[in-house]
Amino acid sequence: MSTLIGLQCHVCHTAFAAEATYVCDQCFGPLEPVYDYDKARATFTRENIASRPRNLWRYRELLPITGEPLTGFGSGFTPLIPAPRLAARLGVRELYVKDDGVNHPTLSYKDRVVSVAATRAVELGFTVFGCASTGNLGNSVAAHASRLGLRCFVFIPDDLEPYKVLGSAIYHPTLLAVRGNYDDVNRLCTQVADKHGWGFANINLRSYYAEGAKTMGFEIVEQLGWRFPKHVVSPVAGGTLLPRIFRGFRELHQLGLGEGDLPKMYGAQAAGSAPVIRALHQGIDYPDPVKPDTIAKSIAIGNPADGFQVIEVLKESGGWGEMVTDEEILDGINLLAETEGIFTEPAGGTTIAVTRKLIEQERIPRNESIVMCITGNGYKTADIMTGRVTRAIPISRSLEDVDAYLAGTLAGVGGEQA
Amino acid sequence: MSTLIGLQCHVCHTAFAAEATYVCDQCFGPLEPVYDYDKARATFTRENIASRPRNLWRYRELLPITGEPLTGFGSGFTPLIPAPRLAARLGVRELYVKDDGVNHPTLSYKDRVVSVAATRAVELGFTVFGCASTGNLGNSVAAHASRLGLRCFVFIPDDLEPYKVLGSAIYHPTLLAVRGNYDDVNRLCTQVADKHGWGFANINLRSYYAEGAKTMGFEIVEQLGWRFPKHVVSPVAGGTLLPRIFRGFRELHQLGLGEGDLPKMYGAQAAGSAPVIRALHQGIDYPDPVKPDTIAKSIAIGNPADGFQVIEVLKESGGWGEMVTDEEILDGINLLAETEGIFTEPAGGTTIAVTRKLIEQERIPRNESIVMCITGNGYKTADIMTGRVTRAIPISRSLEDVDAYLAGTLAGVGGEQA
Ligand SMILES: Cc1ncc(COP(=O)(O)O)c(C=O)c1O
Ligand SMILES: Cc1ncc(COP(=O)(O)O)c(C=O)c1O
Ligand SMILES: [Zn+2]
Ligand SMILES: [Zn+2]
Repeated sequence: MSTLIGLQCHVCHTAFAAEATYVCDQCFGPLEPVYDYDKARATFTRENIASRPRNLWRYRELLPITGEPLTGFGSGFTPLIPAPRLAARLGVRELYVKDDGVNHPTLSYKDRVVSVAATRAVELGFTVFGCASTGNLGNSVAAHASRLGLRCFVFIPDDLEPYKVLGSAIYHPTLLAVRGNYDDVNRLCTQVADKHGWGFANINLRSYYAEGAKTMGFEIVEQLGWRFPKHVVSPVAGGTLLPRIFRGFRELHQLGLGEGDLPKMYGAQAAGSAPVIRALHQGIDYPDPVKPDTIAKSIAIGNPADGFQVIEVLKESGGWGEMVTDEEILDGINLLAETEGIFTEPAGGTTIAVTRKLIEQERIPRNESIVMCITGNGYKTADIMTGRVTRAIPISRSLEDVDAYLAGTLAGVGGEQA
Repeated sequence: MSTLIGLQCHVCHTAFAAEATYVCDQCFGPLEPVYDYDKARATFTRENIASRPRNLWRYRELLPITGEPLTGFGSGFTPLIPAPRLAARLGVRELYVKDDGVNHPTLSYKDRVVSVAATRAVELGFTVFGCASTGNLGNSVAAHASRLGLRCFVFIPDDLEPYKVLGSAIYHPTLLAVRGNYDDVNRLCTQVADKHGWGFANINLRSYYAEGAKTMGFEIVEQLGWRFPKHVVSPVAGGTLLPRIFRGFRELHQLGLGEGDLPKMYGAQAAGSAPVIRALHQGIDYPDPVKPDTIAKSIAIGNPADGFQVIEVLKESGGWGEMVTDEEILDGINLLAETEGIFTEPAGGTTIAVTRKLIEQERIPRNESIVMCITGNGYKTADIMTGRVTRAIPISRSLEDVDAYLAGTLAGVGGEQA
């Protein structure tokens, strides 16, 4: 079923074998898989796909593995949910949440990319699997390594949220907390990967890893009944996800599997770590690195590996991008929770806040379909909401006390059956 | 599409209208929905079900609502995952995890029961929706109330885990922390429901609520290719889930939709709150209340409303039940994480530990299919694993430091590509 031909440079199109190489030796461009689309066409049909299990491997023909999938049997195919109450609040007509906050097993979009990278790591003969992570990736790499019985090394900055750290630790990897920010961690891991020859999901396996993110695009279209939405808003950190969602759209378009035009793509960053949005607004193609300082730690990457690809896609698709303050991000989390009953982490709050801003700016029109990519779960970072949510009211076990409380503070709640 | 006829008493079979009544006025038995199975048969087919969206409403004919579903469009249809590495560790042949830890939106099995109860609450004209909760139910009730714009009251014991509390608070319900344990909270809520006429998911809407849990049974069979497993292990607290999984199996059996015999059901409780298991072991049909004291707070119910139904099903199906210590529960969490890359909360750890015990006791044979119901997510209670997991090792940004650390502690890791 594999239609993988090899890798090629995204920039100069030089061809490479499908190994653990990720940078072009001609121009330093990133490498990406090439498929035999004519071969894929025979089995990659709406009917076949619809009949397959609810995981990301339903799009198998266009994923860069050569044998059978080894992990990720519950990963992907997350809910796409209509968001009518949030739509009303934002004053738009047709709004959806694509919710990777319930991705299996580690509650973020990273379970997609890691399912692919881990399977490919085993195919390429690696027995040690690792990553440089802002938290979610480490959780996912450690989980999938457990499932596959691989030795695992997770490198993180030393200031992550406590539950994100526990969320990797539970799988018993070697967990190294580096004194520095993500960009320092990433630099270090590049050296470790080179020197020790281990498989790092987002470094030397990056060409395979990134392809896993396409499945979010495939799913959005399939879940809309094989129709493209008009506008898609995605958070941006290293720049893996957003361009790959669009790559997925493009492949479906090319294979004639999506109704309508290709969507416009919009990038969302935290103002405290917005190298891509700053570059976009300044008309620069290659983002200048920044030093991240934001509550949105999972997307605090100051020197994004694929930043230029994000800008390329934002421009080519006719979309745009915005950045929002930490305050707006926290409001975004609250807004999604209180209108749609979905609890996301700051990366998702960034998507919500940026969507709101782009609608207010009339960059996104009010009468066309919009999909917001929610990429992580609020339960992993719940501590940041302390003090911004309803407080629990201590009360005794007596009905009298409940009634006294109600009488005092909630006059006229009523609410008996109509 | 509705085939709901009304309610009837589980014990004496007296018929009732499908209203917010939940106890038989003849014998105090619990009421449960009755369906027109002949009508259901026409559309409740394998093919129809398979073609419907990935949520619990795919089993709509046998769910107790009369109009359109109003919430839960992402709830249910959670992954059923083969667990080969855990199977090897436990010495069994065919083992699966049914993972409601990624249920949408609040990461526990409660999203099933609440999707149904909330929809029915609106149908019955309630504008206030509430519950008595050990944590997960409150999260789910508050989330679905947000989505539906219902006024919400969540009553919890005052000693819950901090993220479980935040996980309700984020949706801005009125959150009341009662000085006492769950059984006290539940007693108080029964009075509040009576006096104020509000809809309480697990009290006056309980007959509808409980039916949502059947979908876990339906899904297990559908996901096994419409085949019954031989053995199913489920945690038990109030006793909603386990008997309803079996009710789902029985309905599929009756409609000819499952291959094989009805499974044997096994109950799992924490030793610190095991009224049902104690009764089972003593040969008593109605559990004596206990005072809960266990780390597994989500299943710390000492006076289970449906305890006798659990015992009925364990006996009728030919299964059994066990209880395990807090220590064994924490080991169970670790075991699942390290073999299968799934992080569950203490309720899930209880299922794992009890499964292990029942296999060791030869209550569950080693060569037959076993499904373990994982009902909640470990990220909500991650703090309890502090001190039992890998510690993050602080390290500088230099490759030399990494290598020094590796040389000192991990001699011979190697791991280059084979
Ligand atoms: C929750 C979440 N959302 C979004 C992103 C951004 O992804 P990318 O690095 O692909 O731009 C990350 C990256 O770590 C993340 O953890
Ligand atoms: C995670 C989890 N598992 C299992 C249960 C037990 O369910 P039941 O009350 O249906 O027996 C609960 C109940 O609160 C729960 O929260
Ligand atoms: Zn090149
Ligand atoms: Zn009766």
